[in-house]
Amino acid sequence: MAVQAVESTTGTSAATTSAYDLGPAVALSCRECGTRTPLGPSFVCLECFGPLEVAYELPGGDPEALRARIAAGPANMWRYAPLLPVPSDVAAKPNLNPGLTPLVQADRLAAELGVTGGLYVKDDSGNPTHSFKDRPVAIALEAARAFGFTTLSCSSTGNLAGAVGAAAARAGLRSCVFIPDGLEQSKVVMAAVYGGELVAIDGTYDDVNRFCSELIGDPLGEGWGFTNVNLRPFYAEGSKTLAYEICEQLGWELPDQIVIPVASGCQLVKIDKGLRELVRLGLVEDKPFQIFAAQAEGCSPVSRAYKDGTDAVRPVKKPDTIAKSLAIGDPADGPYVIDICRRTGGAVDDVNDEQIVDAMKLLARTEGVFAETAGGVTLGVTRKLIESGAIDPSLTTVVLNTGDGLKTLDAVAPTSRPTAVIRPSLDAFRDAGLA
Amino acid sequence: MAVQAVESTTGTSAATTSAYDLGPAVALSCRECGTRTPLGPSFVCLECFGPLEVAYELPGGDPEALRARIAAGPANMWRYAPLLPVPSDVAAKPNLNPGLTPLVQADRLAAELGVTGGLYVKDDSGNPTHSFKDRPVAIALEAARAFGFTTLSCSSTGNLAGAVGAAAARAGLRSCVFIPDGLEQSKVVMAAVYGGELVAIDGTYDDVNRFCSELIGDPLGEGWGFTNVNLRPFYAEGSKTLAYEICEQLGWELPDQIVIPVASGCQLVKIDKGLRELVRLGLVEDKPFQIFAAQAEGCSPVSRAYKDGTDAVRPVKKPDTIAKSLAIGDPADGPYVIDICRRTGGAVDDVNDEQIVDAMKLLARTEGVFAETAGGVTLGVTRKLIESGAIDPSLTTVVLNTGDGLKTLDAVAPTSRPTAVIRPSLDAFRDAGLA
Repeated sequence: MAVQAVESTTGTSAATTSAYDLGPAVALSCRECGTRTPLGPSFVCLECFGPLEVAYELPGGDPEALRARIAAGPANMWRYAPLLPVPSDVAAKPNLNPGLTPLVQADRLAAELGVTGGLYVKDDSGNPTHSFKDRPVAIALEAARAFGFTTLSCSSTGNLAGAVGAAAARAGLRSCVFIPDGLEQSKVVMAAVYGGELVAIDGTYDDVNRFCSELIGDPLGEGWGFTNVNLRPFYAEGSKTLAYEICEQLGWELPDQIVIPVASGCQLVKIDKGLRELVRLGLVEDKPFQIFAAQAEGCSPVSRAYKDGTDAVRPVKKPDTIAKSLAIGDPADGPYVIDICRRTGGAVDDVNDEQIVDAMKLLARTEGVFAETAGGVTLGVTRKLIESGAIDPSLTTVVLNTGDGLKTLDAVAPTSRPTAVIRPSLDAFRDAGLA
Repeated sequence: MAVQAVESTTGTSAATTSAYDLGPAVALSCRECGTRTPLGPSFVCLECFGPLEVAYELPGGDPEALRARIAAGPANMWRYAPLLPVPSDVAAKPNLNPGLTPLVQADRLAAELGVTGGLYVKDDSGNPTHSFKDRPVAIALEAARAFGFTTLSCSSTGNLAGAVGAAAARAGLRSCVFIPDGLEQSKVVMAAVYGGELVAIDGTYDDVNRFCSELIGDPLGEGWGFTNVNLRPFYAEGSKTLAYEICEQLGWELPDQIVIPVASGCQLVKIDKGLRELVRLGLVEDKPFQIFAAQAEGCSPVSRAYKDGTDAVRPVKKPDTIAKSLAIGDPADGPYVIDICRRTGGAVDDVNDEQIVDAMKLLARTEGVFAETAGGVTLGVTRKLIESGAIDPSLTTVVLNTGDGLKTLDAVAPTSRPTAVIRPSLDAFRDAGLA
């Protein structure tokens, strides 16, 4: 199928020519004021300081042909390359090829929760480094290569650090990643094992993030591509592939309800954008969908603002939750999350540590999916919103699991032990009373 | 495409009718004497005590049509359902849907090892519970359902226990799994988190295995399907899908050389069988291929027998290696492994703990793949055999990674730590000397 440049997702018709081959991406565009700037390692609008996003000329024409082209693509996120800011030969380059993770039809979980309209878990623990972060990083890596960066970097609560380390290793780039001190051991090891530099910062994630912003402006950071700072417009687009996959795996249909965890909020904003793009391209039939946001009680600035009826998100200074990957006290996209949940008729809610662990164990017991604490947050909030009536159990619901239980072992370790330790004899087994 | 029953992989033309719908499987057949017995939970030949295997009537006809049928199948191992002992509607049943894991084109690793003919890592850490064990368990689960078992069980060095727990949870079966006491924490948690019974046995894996064989013969074990004992003929076939995928991912070509870790040896035997089936079905062109087997020095009964020029495998009483998933002192398929390596012109070798860790870090650093210790064994032996000249660097080589580094964290944790811990300031970063 020939790809025709007939549609822009920004509504601005004048394309900006670009020095880079990043597929259908033609410019950066301010989410607030719409001002365009050429493709490059920029992330803030120079007119209004709003966040920059990628502007496209997406393939037009027959949706059926585009669906067929996607179906014939590789069994990973590069099947959506015609919709992403990556070179058309991206699948042939050395990268981790994440995506096309399972959409688990969770019938046993549905039965326990009383959901009758279809319940699905999008299980992103199947990605190469076992979190959704491989998606945005795979796109940021292409941007880094295009812009000639030699070091790939990030501020991270853990999962991103591992994803950046692995992607840089595969691509043969240097990496240097920054994490708050005191993360889970699995995440620390995974951030270091790929051979790049790992720097622990004595402070919170928000301190790490501020430090990285300083580093970009300093000669020390020259030649560095920070996936979630100066490459953020590209990086952020990676989460759209979750929306694409969910709809394709549902047979090119929108879900009615989708529950998404919130750290910076970027993922939720981009999933909403991805769903709307599919409608615009005619790949799915338009219908209302509701987006729900999940936070951990110990770091719930967005949930608190939502419940207070405001969109002024007051930062949490000292996050205190076992869901460390969601422990961003000052979430950049918080207000957008609230807007989207209100606009679509969704909601924002939070759960405490005990509810998180309960939900992790519920998901493991019913569906054989061992989720990270963040997955426990999302399922815990789902359960809470079903009980409150905010989520309609008669509609199709998709719950995201964005990470892997092996990375947050401490949450379930105390209650996940052998039922018995016995000698290797039938008598000992009989005495243990398990037969 | 209509599937025609025109070919048997056992060479016996008389099909045995079966009470069970297990796809192309028509009987069990002794690997030693060829005696056939009806499909059922049997694993030992009553004539000669040889191991039973599944006998098929496989689809015949046009290989191109079969390749197209496979390509149009699901993005998991059920695309090969026409070649497996599972019901034709297996993909619609609640199971973990493992398989179609990445075949990583390892160019940077190849450059370090001096391989010029193409080096690939088959990375099975992408499976649902992050080891290859999801494959055999998925098939054993179908057999368990067919035979009416209500408890799924196994003896395990860890990975299998997690795979059984998760598969049983998804399917709504009870599970009770047995492990040797003292396994890695990640594996213990993963064996318990899915809510089944987990019993630790005070002894080695071989003690656990003997205990399970006793349990099957006892009324206590009634209604229990042990994936790797009374369901073993079905379970074992799961590893063939590794052979199928590798060839499909190479563009329906046989690799020249393939390096496989050896615990019980079952996986290697079945990969060899799978490769030969593809030749017989015309799905790949026939050409010589060499199979190499990898063990850990601290539990290397097969390697020792191979080097001694015998096929009498003397059990190792007290395995002592960080590659606990390979710590089977008395490997059931040991002699078959030696036969296959000799017949194909391959070899068997082993590496010590230090070489295992080195290989794990080499793989992580060059390809962004974080392998379990067993993967370190396989890559370590690959490196050794390249250096000795046994593996030809000018030929296509596939190395298996069968598990996940997150499950054997202790092996690399001491050397995978932050390069520096600093305050969040440019001065502190400058002082750390990392820019």
